[in-house]
Amino acid sequence: MTRYQHLAALLAQRIEQGLYQNGERLPSVRTLSQEHGVSISTVQQAYHVLESQQLILPQPRSGYYVAPRKAHPPVPGLTRPAQRPVEISQWDSVRELFSPNPERNLYNLGGGGPDVSQSSIKPLWKSLTRFCQRQDLRVLNYGNMYGAPELREQIARLALDSDCQLAAEDIVITTGCQEALFTALRSLCREGDIVAVESPTFPGTLQTLRGLGIKVVEIPTDAVTGISLEALQLALEQWPIKAVMLVPSCNNPLGFYMPDARKKALIVLAQQFDIAIIEDDAYGELAYEYPRPRTIKSFDSDGRVLLCSSFSKSFAPGLRVGWIAPGRYLERVLHTKYTSTGYAVTHTQLAVAEFIRQGHYQPHVRRMRAYYKSNLDTFTCWVRRYFPCGICVSRPQGGFLMWIEFPETFDTLRLNSLLRQSGIQIASGSLFSASGKYRNCMRVHYGLPLTDEMQQMLRVIGEQAEHLLHEDTVSGH
Amino acid sequence: MTRYQHLAALLAQRIEQGLYQNGERLPSVRTLSQEHGVSISTVQQAYHVLESQQLILPQPRSGYYVAPRKAHPPVPGLTRPAQRPVEISQWDSVRELFSPNPERNLYNLGGGGPDVSQSSIKPLWKSLTRFCQRQDLRVLNYGNMYGAPELREQIARLALDSDCQLAAEDIVITTGCQEALFTALRSLCREGDIVAVESPTFPGTLQTLRGLGIKVVEIPTDAVTGISLEALQLALEQWPIKAVMLVPSCNNPLGFYMPDARKKALIVLAQQFDIAIIEDDAYGELAYEYPRPRTIKSFDSDGRVLLCSSFSKSFAPGLRVGWIAPGRYLERVLHTKYTSTGYAVTHTQLAVAEFIRQGHYQPHVRRMRAYYKSNLDTFTCWVRRYFPCGICVSRPQGGFLMWIEFPETFDTLRLNSLLRQSGIQIASGSLFSASGKYRNCMRVHYGLPLTDEMQQMLRVIGEQAEHLLHEDTVSGH
Repeated sequence: MTRYQHLAALLAQRIEQGLYQNGERLPSVRTLSQEHGVSISTVQQAYHVLESQQLILPQPRSGYYVAPRKAHPPVPGLTRPAQRPVEISQWDSVRELFSPNPERNLYNLGGGGPDVSQSSIKPLWKSLTRFCQRQDLRVLNYGNMYGAPELREQIARLALDSDCQLAAEDIVITTGCQEALFTALRSLCREGDIVAVESPTFPGTLQTLRGLGIKVVEIPTDAVTGISLEALQLALEQWPIKAVMLVPSCNNPLGFYMPDARKKALIVLAQQFDIAIIEDDAYGELAYEYPRPRTIKSFDSDGRVLLCSSFSKSFAPGLRVGWIAPGRYLERVLHTKYTSTGYAVTHTQLAVAEFIRQGHYQPHVRRMRAYYKSNLDTFTCWVRRYFPCGICVSRPQGGFLMWIEFPETFDTLRLNSLLRQSGIQIASGSLFSASGKYRNCMRVHYGLPLTDEMQQMLRVIGEQAEHLLHEDTVSGH
Repeated sequence: MTRYQHLAALLAQRIEQGLYQNGERLPSVRTLSQEHGVSISTVQQAYHVLESQQLILPQPRSGYYVAPRKAHPPVPGLTRPAQRPVEISQWDSVRELFSPNPERNLYNLGGGGPDVSQSSIKPLWKSLTRFCQRQDLRVLNYGNMYGAPELREQIARLALDSDCQLAAEDIVITTGCQEALFTALRSLCREGDIVAVESPTFPGTLQTLRGLGIKVVEIPTDAVTGISLEALQLALEQWPIKAVMLVPSCNNPLGFYMPDARKKALIVLAQQFDIAIIEDDAYGELAYEYPRPRTIKSFDSDGRVLLCSSFSKSFAPGLRVGWIAPGRYLERVLHTKYTSTGYAVTHTQLAVAEFIRQGHYQPHVRRMRAYYKSNLDTFTCWVRRYFPCGICVSRPQGGFLMWIEFPETFDTLRLNSLLRQSGIQIASGSLFSASGKYRNCMRVHYGLPLTDEMQQMLRVIGEQAEHLLHEDTVSGH
């Protein structure tokens, strides 16, 4: 970093922290030059940077002033989905999002993979290599239908850390959390059955339900407290719902933790209507607070919670190491998994088990939490700075996904088409609903290194959004 | 190997090859001692070995004579399954077979994994290690929904070797052949649909159909020429069958190659009734003849053949590298696979692609073919020697699985229970039928090193079988 960039970053931080107030005049070029022991030219370059970042405004013959800062946008309100069983659409857009044509050079801000370049992950390479150097035949042979016992033991140990009593025999290893969720649904439901989900919902879940011919009832969900239990009860009274499927810890995409009291209340409701609960805990380990939130499973007394998770988000998705603790549905889940993939890859299971056993996992996750939390702060600033007014922004309590809600008539699918011409891909909120609702919303990813390039992209998104909003206003939308 | 063992093996070979005929008197101890330049004691020990192997019989004051050799058992005849849509049962026995309780020290002769200890596989360890040493981030990140392009290209190249025109874009990588078959079925069928299968059928396939709520019509199958096209046509005329699912090359468990003329006739039949063909080619590369048999897919002109395969049987099952070339069903298959596992493990895909690209795959497969062929010869001898008379034995044209048919009232489930007490597990034929037919049959595995221990196990199986047959006769069964 050059001197002027360093100075600009320092001043920006002071502005963000409120040390220079809205509208306040900043020190003269000469004063800063003396204060920091740098040349006049360096200070001028620093001020130019801040101006280009829209943090300060020049007043002719007067100096520089802190630009009016927008207030922190509110979180989105309770969502209002249709609340009746519907079928799911939109495969093409989902496909495009998760496997964009590699010939196009697109920066995918709509994806959901963690940062795998951090140094705390390095012991994993040693673990992966060690089994090969020893030529461990377990790497080449069929494994155990349940999955490697070493790994199941480590997972049970980790679960204890979040007050969840699991034994290794309660756990089945899957190829990613995707297979865990898929297996849970197949074990519980038949074509034509109905499942209740939060709304918005992760597109992968919606497409899985669609592929299985299962209808969804989308339940209103609050960006801070989670699924509305009142609305869920109404739905359970009205429809023959088989299960409720949710992401209660570091929700994808809203980022909340469901409070413990509501988790317990959910279990009571499930017992009352005798339904199963499919809990997706893929992001649970990335909660910013310590200790991490308890799983619904940890309150489960009669085995009706199928806890699904993986090491994809906290660690590395390419390893495809996931798992399910399906309670009383264990035998059905084992049969289902046997028929979908038979066995999971042995090598990555053994390497992950060793990584955990040797004590590298917890430090890695701690590091990633802090990293994502720090990214969140910077990213939120950028959103506030560059995006139009009148938006709502989620306050994620963990993970690396942010949900942004534009005014009601805004079209993020249109925004996405325009942005793709500039090499940027976002995730339109319409993918997060069975019926294309939330078209005025988008999900973005702040988990990768926040470079100048990234900042510039947010600026471009903000400008395009502003432009579209202006068009809407002009056309009387 | 000691001298007397060496001499015994040599004499045994001569007997097998017919150089010493049935009932012929063998050379005296003195003659052999002079001929081979070994001590009298060595010859006597060798003769003892042969006697314990039931190859020769001592006649007091006369010498040793070649024991009457049983004729090579006939192959099983055309099977006679029910030929109407049925549901499938028997999960518990299948589960026990493929994931036996690890606390029990059981030698599993009923399983289906290849020998992974051969030296020709060693370059794979280097390939696996190399990506880790380079810390290739592709190992950690989500991959491509289709699978690694490098691997798909290598698979397309290999397909050309068996006259099958495939492009990399026609191929989707799956977690083993199991996921390929599962995905094919899910893409074509809904609950309650009907699929035609060969009979006997691989248990994994039957359980997959069962899990999907699909009924099967089992079609009579000949141990040499494969599925009866006449019976299949009758079934297609009678029932609304969606697809036919078969293992035409090195069939599991009967070991035949379906002749090319019949493959073409099958395609014509499929076109006539507009059904899909799901082809399981998992063992195809292990055909003893070179070039390997053509796939049905290689004759496919309208994309109705979904070719499923993997590197599990020819190479290493623990890597879980499978694939599907689904013809006109590509889009549906991509959606289906996205919902079951999302992505396959990247690391093993890259390592396998490199192994093939560097030219190690073909020599390895050639070596394995020769190895299994040689094992087949020895194993067949042992079966002929130790098993009761009145059995039929398949003549596998590839792979490492043998099918043995006992007299009609024989119960291999009962045989299996008895054998488990001696630490041996076999696969009862009843698992290979939707309705528990073929209870008088069993499948055994001759792909692992044929040690003295293995020979002893066959002897134990033969003795137990003889014992059960005798019981049946006495009880008037």
